[in-house]
Amino acid sequence: MKRIFLDHASTSKVDPEVLETMVPYFSTHYGNPSSLHFFGRDALQGVETAREQVGTLLGAREDEIIFTAGGTESDNLAIKGIAYLNKEKMKASGPHIITSAIEHPGVLEVCKHLELQGYRVTYLPVDQYGLVNLEDLEHAISKNTFLITIMYANNEIGTIEPVEEIGKIAREHDVLFHTDAVQAVGKLPINTKKLPVDLLALSSHKLYGPKGVGALYIRNGVKLQPIIHGGGHEKGLRSSTLNVPGIVGLGKACKLAGKRMDTDNARIKQLRDTLITNVLRIEQSYLNGHPTQRLVNNAHFRFTGIEGESLLLQLDEQGIATSTGSACSSKKLQASHVLTAIGLSPVDAHGSLRLSLGRETTKDEIAFVSKVTPQVVEKLRMMSPLWNR
Amino acid sequence: MKRIFLDHASTSKVDPEVLETMVPYFSTHYGNPSSLHFFGRDALQGVETAREQVGTLLGAREDEIIFTAGGTESDNLAIKGIAYLNKEKMKASGPHIITSAIEHPGVLEVCKHLELQGYRVTYLPVDQYGLVNLEDLEHAISKNTFLITIMYANNEIGTIEPVEEIGKIAREHDVLFHTDAVQAVGKLPINTKKLPVDLLALSSHKLYGPKGVGALYIRNGVKLQPIIHGGGHEKGLRSSTLNVPGIVGLGKACKLAGKRMDTDNARIKQLRDTLITNVLRIEQSYLNGHPTQRLVNNAHFRFTGIEGESLLLQLDEQGIATSTGSACSSKKLQASHVLTAIGLSPVDAHGSLRLSLGRETTKDEIAFVSKVTPQVVEKLRMMSPLWNR
Repeated sequence: MKRIFLDHASTSKVDPEVLETMVPYFSTHYGNPSSLHFFGRDALQGVETAREQVGTLLGAREDEIIFTAGGTESDNLAIKGIAYLNKEKMKASGPHIITSAIEHPGVLEVCKHLELQGYRVTYLPVDQYGLVNLEDLEHAISKNTFLITIMYANNEIGTIEPVEEIGKIAREHDVLFHTDAVQAVGKLPINTKKLPVDLLALSSHKLYGPKGVGALYIRNGVKLQPIIHGGGHEKGLRSSTLNVPGIVGLGKACKLAGKRMDTDNARIKQLRDTLITNVLRIEQSYLNGHPTQRLVNNAHFRFTGIEGESLLLQLDEQGIATSTGSACSSKKLQASHVLTAIGLSPVDAHGSLRLSLGRETTKDEIAFVSKVTPQVVEKLRMMSPLWNR
Repeated sequence: MKRIFLDHASTSKVDPEVLETMVPYFSTHYGNPSSLHFFGRDALQGVETAREQVGTLLGAREDEIIFTAGGTESDNLAIKGIAYLNKEKMKASGPHIITSAIEHPGVLEVCKHLELQGYRVTYLPVDQYGLVNLEDLEHAISKNTFLITIMYANNEIGTIEPVEEIGKIAREHDVLFHTDAVQAVGKLPINTKKLPVDLLALSSHKLYGPKGVGALYIRNGVKLQPIIHGGGHEKGLRSSTLNVPGIVGLGKACKLAGKRMDTDNARIKQLRDTLITNVLRIEQSYLNGHPTQRLVNNAHFRFTGIEGESLLLQLDEQGIATSTGSACSSKKLQASHVLTAIGLSPVDAHGSLRLSLGRETTKDEIAFVSKVTPQVVEKLRMMSPLWNR
């Protein structure tokens, strides 16, 4: 069966050029970059080239990039790393973090964990499109607020948050700003020289790099406490033998993303817009998320009268891979916290489906999905007790 | 220049069979194992096969294996994971951990960090060979002791600790026992069905698997608090999209290790013993660590009158890759904490060199190193103000 992968928000195939760059680091340049000998220096050179490549994509200096094992670890390091340093300072008055209700679990669960430890967290609501309100943000800031953590773009509905404005507000109030940019890096131009952000998390496998590696941008001068202690790698912020092939792959993926972003985006957006137009021809179908301020590869629909999971499984039988929400939570039964935050009822939230396009998505694939989806929706509605035409 | 890699305690080339198993997971089986569709199920199958393979090597059930990003993270998760759960319980009386003075920084630095948070830590001394004394251990246990963490085999001098006896003592006193087995797994037969250990950390790249992946064995019933929060992967103990190719590689590496351990060990031990015999012919040269109770691939020498780092660099110029201690600390200037713990003076500690053999080490390589090392030692001694014949 020909298989069509429309779940790029969850992961992607490693780009062949990335894989080609990585492979020698498993079997030839296999040294430990902490070693003083030839093999060590050789591996270190690969790591430092990658650090430069990641930095270049973000307009950052190499020494502002720390490698981690993924986006979730980067978010954990950023938020806990800042929080633990600020705990002492603010013990008397209750240290305060501001985030949004639609963050990835890598941020939300960290915030919930910190609440158990005596931190106060404000979860800003979002509007029907998933946008944070800047006035709400300003109102939430108190003298105990030491960190704002709001995502760059949402992983489910693709909505792009006003991070520049958020960063400006953070600066004005002398509060640090972290952004989970896992979905944004490689798809949106990001320049930390101009963007008022202090910490920014990214994940390699969301931009055609390998799984198991990520990075955290830390603006020069921002101090963190590590969450993994040991040999003192990565300036003491993340101890562990460096994942050299993974890091080299992430570097190459960043380089490719920088080079291909404009052409990839233009092509993908056109395909995505075609898909949206076609799918919305289905009776009582709706687009979740913002109509324009959204990632170019994201299409997120809801269909009255059917369950997203049934739709996913039916499409899977036709060879089409999609998602009902984030992959992380796809096996949980609760309605998506993102969809309930934008005001959907649990029933509508469960009737939703995410299709996320990628670098290899073709016109033919979109044509096939555009043909099959209405048929499957129709079939499911025929069987649905929820559907009354 | 022909290069000889005698630094396998720091890392190894990925076994070609392991790499072959991994590669399709970058480009074909690239799904996110949390996804419900075909690609997700396909990736999950790879992960679960690997979990079984790791379990088999350790005599453990699949559900006792958690994948992490490496040995250091596994150690952090084990120790902090237990410590944070026990903090509340023991707040009044001061929770207590017992470890040894020669642990890897992935354990030692965690213990130091916990001391700052109000935990009490006993660092057991070791004898001249690096062995922990069991009576010392029993004496150190108090009613507040909740965890013993002592390594299986030392990463610098290769000494194998009496983990079975340590485990028995832990059981008798109803204290949990974690062991950092990063250097032992794949080289020593380990059967958690018989070994009284509750937690055991391993690292993939120390057994010819890829860097950036590790595992933690957690005996069924032992509870931990996660150190990375998020989507709830790995039973909530380690949130992050699973590093599928890395995990698959670790699984395969474990399978190979199980199959090859006896023959590899016999061959490597013979080469290592030849190396030791040859090198100890050098005037005023000594073996650090235990003469017999040591890893078969480890040779650790000290040479009066010269600096290990100079020796390392001279050998590197001849194409021979060695280490003065652990790779993690190779760029620090302090004398190794392991060598000072076995009673070496700082000068003697700085005069030490580790050669660690591997699966691909040949007789010819050992012959070459046996010839070159005395020459280099002689040359350095000629230039050394510390050397008076």
